[in-house]
Amino acid sequence: MTNTVNNMIGIDIGGTSIKFSLMDKNGAIEKKWSIPTNISEKGMFIPKEICESIQTQVLNNEAYMIDGIGIGVPGPISTDGRVVLQAVNLDWYDLPLKDLIENELGIGVALLNDANAAALGEMWQGAARGKENLLFVTLGTGVGGGIVLNGQILNGCHSAGGEIGHIPVRSTENRLCGCGARNCLETFSSANGLTLSMRKKLEEVGESWASLSAPRIFSEAEKGNPLAQEVLAEFIDILGQALAGILNTIDVEQVIVGGGLSAAGDQLLKPLKASMDRYVFPQIKHHFSLKKAQLENEAGSYGAVYAYLSMNDLN
Amino acid sequence: MTNTVNNMIGIDIGGTSIKFSLMDKNGAIEKKWSIPTNISEKGMFIPKEICESIQTQVLNNEAYMIDGIGIGVPGPISTDGRVVLQAVNLDWYDLPLKDLIENELGIGVALLNDANAAALGEMWQGAARGKENLLFVTLGTGVGGGIVLNGQILNGCHSAGGEIGHIPVRSTENRLCGCGARNCLETFSSANGLTLSMRKKLEEVGESWASLSAPRIFSEAEKGNPLAQEVLAEFIDILGQALAGILNTIDVEQVIVGGGLSAAGDQLLKPLKASMDRYVFPQIKHHFSLKKAQLENEAGSYGAVYAYLSMNDLN
Repeated sequence: MTNTVNNMIGIDIGGTSIKFSLMDKNGAIEKKWSIPTNISEKGMFIPKEICESIQTQVLNNEAYMIDGIGIGVPGPISTDGRVVLQAVNLDWYDLPLKDLIENELGIGVALLNDANAAALGEMWQGAARGKENLLFVTLGTGVGGGIVLNGQILNGCHSAGGEIGHIPVRSTENRLCGCGARNCLETFSSANGLTLSMRKKLEEVGESWASLSAPRIFSEAEKGNPLAQEVLAEFIDILGQALAGILNTIDVEQVIVGGGLSAAGDQLLKPLKASMDRYVFPQIKHHFSLKKAQLENEAGSYGAVYAYLSMNDLN
Repeated sequence: MTNTVNNMIGIDIGGTSIKFSLMDKNGAIEKKWSIPTNISEKGMFIPKEICESIQTQVLNNEAYMIDGIGIGVPGPISTDGRVVLQAVNLDWYDLPLKDLIENELGIGVALLNDANAAALGEMWQGAARGKENLLFVTLGTGVGGGIVLNGQILNGCHSAGGEIGHIPVRSTENRLCGCGARNCLETFSSANGLTLSMRKKLEEVGESWASLSAPRIFSEAEKGNPLAQEVLAEFIDILGQALAGILNTIDVEQVIVGGGLSAAGDQLLKPLKASMDRYVFPQIKHHFSLKKAQLENEAGSYGAVYAYLSMNDLN
């Protein structure tokens, strides 16, 4: 614990709830709360409800002075950091969220994409502490990514930096991705991709399972089910190849895996590391580390605060 | 033309010759010359011969004051920029080239990998002028790459940044790469990869050509040979997918294609652009440009000089 004033707010906007964390500049959390995400009327009430919640929970309390707010958003942010270009779950298009909150509260705001926020959060307070070059991969319903180079997020020229879920996989299959393309990495390497592969494999051999989910596939594979093992091996091979290709491109020292599938822990990470070591360039082989994310739901809030602090030279 | 003194030397070390360019800080070239690459005795005479050549050609002439030297090397450079970790063609391993030249001549040196040098060269004086975020791809005997983000080379944590020739391609083939891995991008997308694909296709149908080369394949495809067209289409599809995956990762605005195969011009670039547009993320689609490199053999010298200038805040 430190004696500094608690003066930053980290916000993680999700499709079902908006999570707030009041923390100091060292990341020590004083208070956490959340509100439901109001997606009615194209999410137009969300900015106001965020401000009201901060007012009620923090600003009305004289003990707190807030220096800045960091917000992680499930969608791409304009290259100038002011506008949410698109957040499909919230029905937002070109929403100037930074200005809306700053004008309402008179407090500076840093906006960033949630996967990018999580990458910075893991670097600041989580599994990548002390590293300045890393790839954060989230394996959930889809596949997301955040790239940090020299301590800075690679947001890209079209706000698509780290969109690794959409790396095309060379395949004879024809899996339609939400982005409109075929055979994107996330159509194979997400929880949805994994269950689709399992379903196809079961159909192929004329079997079926009463319930089909990613955890069930990991569990059956662990129990020795050869079909589940085969599907998982292919899953890991595809993901390992893609991540190796990314390392050969950006050559970071640390890969952090978060999202629902990371709950499988070593059952996923050990063979994934072996797969990546098989496919990376000799100079990289055995010289990078692959770790499970540590912060889970807090990563975005931490990273958004960190982004505010570094943009304003406060860290 | 400018009136500034010609005071930089750019050097491009290749397997057969070492090219020198005397230029000013604006890239105006005053003089060019080259010496053969002396690969005897594990290339141990090369540093001395470089210094002697600079002495003879430039330093012995009182009209020239040299502020700095930039050197592009066919191999990875240590992250501190002092040591050539490996240059297979020259038989160099852990050669402290920067110190060797600086100590001999008393002039500052910037060392960089030749593909990285070419990327900076194209940014400074070539096809990517005015861009700060770009991918340079060289399609020659192998496939090389150089990535520039915010005007800086991405050298990587293990000096493997931009090693895109070793991105693994998912394939049922089993092509051994010089790096020891199988099915690296350069086993498909280089001149060697292309001719191998053509040879396989010809064998498949029981045909043979008297001479088999990359230019011949492009020329036969243009003349309407369906086999050559098929091989070229597959070549472009694999390369387009890989480059699209890179754009989805680093989201740069400009892709520059150099190396021997780029001589095919629009016959390569037009379908390659279409392939990339099919595979990139929607935000990027139609919003990046793909161009042929302009500087050819000069790119490395220009880029090495540019690297020296920017490292020393002279540009």
